Amino acid sequence: MKLYDDPRSGNGYKARLLLGHLNKPYEYLPLDILRGETRTQEFLQKNPNGRIPLLELDDGTFLPESNAILFFLAQGSNYWPNSPLAQAQVLRWMFFEQYSHEPNIATARFWLSIRGLENTPFNQELLAQKQKQGHQALAVMENHLENRRFFVGDSYTIADIALYAYTHVAEEGGFSLSAYPEVCQWLDRVRIQQGHVQMER
Amino acid sequence: MKLYDDPRSGNGYKARLLLGHLNKPYEYLPLDILRGETRTQEFLQKNPNGRIPLLELDDGTFLPESNAILFFLAQGSNYWPNSPLAQAQVLRWMFFEQYSHEPNIATARFWLSIRGLENTPFNQELLAQKQKQGHQALAVMENHLENRRFFVGDSYTIADIALYAYTHVAEEGGFSLSAYPEVCQWLDRVRIQQGHVQMER
Repeated sequence: MKLYDDPRSGNGYKARLLLGHLNKPYEYLPLDILRGETRTQEFLQKNPNGRIPLLELDDGTFLPESNAILFFLAQGSNYWPNSPLAQAQVLRWMFFEQYSHEPNIATARFWLSIRGLENTPFNQELLAQKQKQGHQALAVMENHLENRRFFVGDSYTIADIALYAYTHVAEEGGFSLSAYPEVCQWLDRVRIQQGHVQMER
Repeated sequence: MKLYDDPRSGNGYKARLLLGHLNKPYEYLPLDILRGETRTQEFLQKNPNGRIPLLELDDGTFLPESNAILFFLAQGSNYWPNSPLAQAQVLRWMFFEQYSHEPNIATARFWLSIRGLENTPFNQELLAQKQKQGHQALAVMENHLENRRFFVGDSYTIADIALYAYTHVAEEGGFSLSAYPEVCQWLDRVRIQQGHVQMER
């Protein structure tokens, strides 16, 4: 298997983290999104949406979208539950992550810590809105974790992996986590899972 | 089963469309998002993220997120494929829909045709960006459909349902579909599937 990724990407880190838990070997192909390396004709042949992460299977099939990659890699493991309702709840949190969490928390981090705010086309007003909506997402997580160890059922699943990726670096987007003690304890529980790898390669 | 929904929502329509195909009875509970009916304390008890659609199962379990609802309802039907890789590709398009398609096409439609641009906090610049990114998503769909009848494999799945919901009303967001003939033919193929229901209730 090959993983096309930018080492700074939390979306790519989701796949790296699960592959660490599964102890699966893979070839790592780093690309620099800031230099347009995911928008070349060569890469667009692989993923017409021009984004990483992208998984290439041994038969040459390409699978984009970080959370679809998590789903695929987790099949048959403990990181994907057995019951259809628990599976649907895992996906519910993964869609929440891509719709309500990542576009705010990861985007603010990208502007502030990766690209640099001076290079973004946006103004402070839009950043303030991202931060407001990011805090709303964190509050939804805090509320859900009040009586729970993990997001679905009582075990660590790809829902936790998807949400961990950008939550654990939320401070790089200007989000203090001090108001979210349940979230902080959950981050600690994620970090001690067997095979955990850090984001930095 | 109960479906909490706003009748104007394309996300809610996804669930209504699949329930139509499955010919499953359900109780319909309409809410008006413009009047804040998804942000009341009563509704936030049901879905802390304050969004429709929301499915309530007979045992009182709540399942939010339109695409997680599609996944759950499609289990055991022809609308969810059998192989893990095909399932992952279905989810890939559903994550594409929620990340690259809906936030642009549905949001432009919401501003222009539901809420009215004069009531939005945004300016023309942001609308122009939504339209640029929405056209990028439509171009990815057009490219993918060039040699295909449906998004995954050769049959109609919940990936098609998820993408149909806001694509077929894209013109309400100011997107002309005339530059996307493959998309238009695919829309026609979706419309003739058994049990198809229209968006308007």
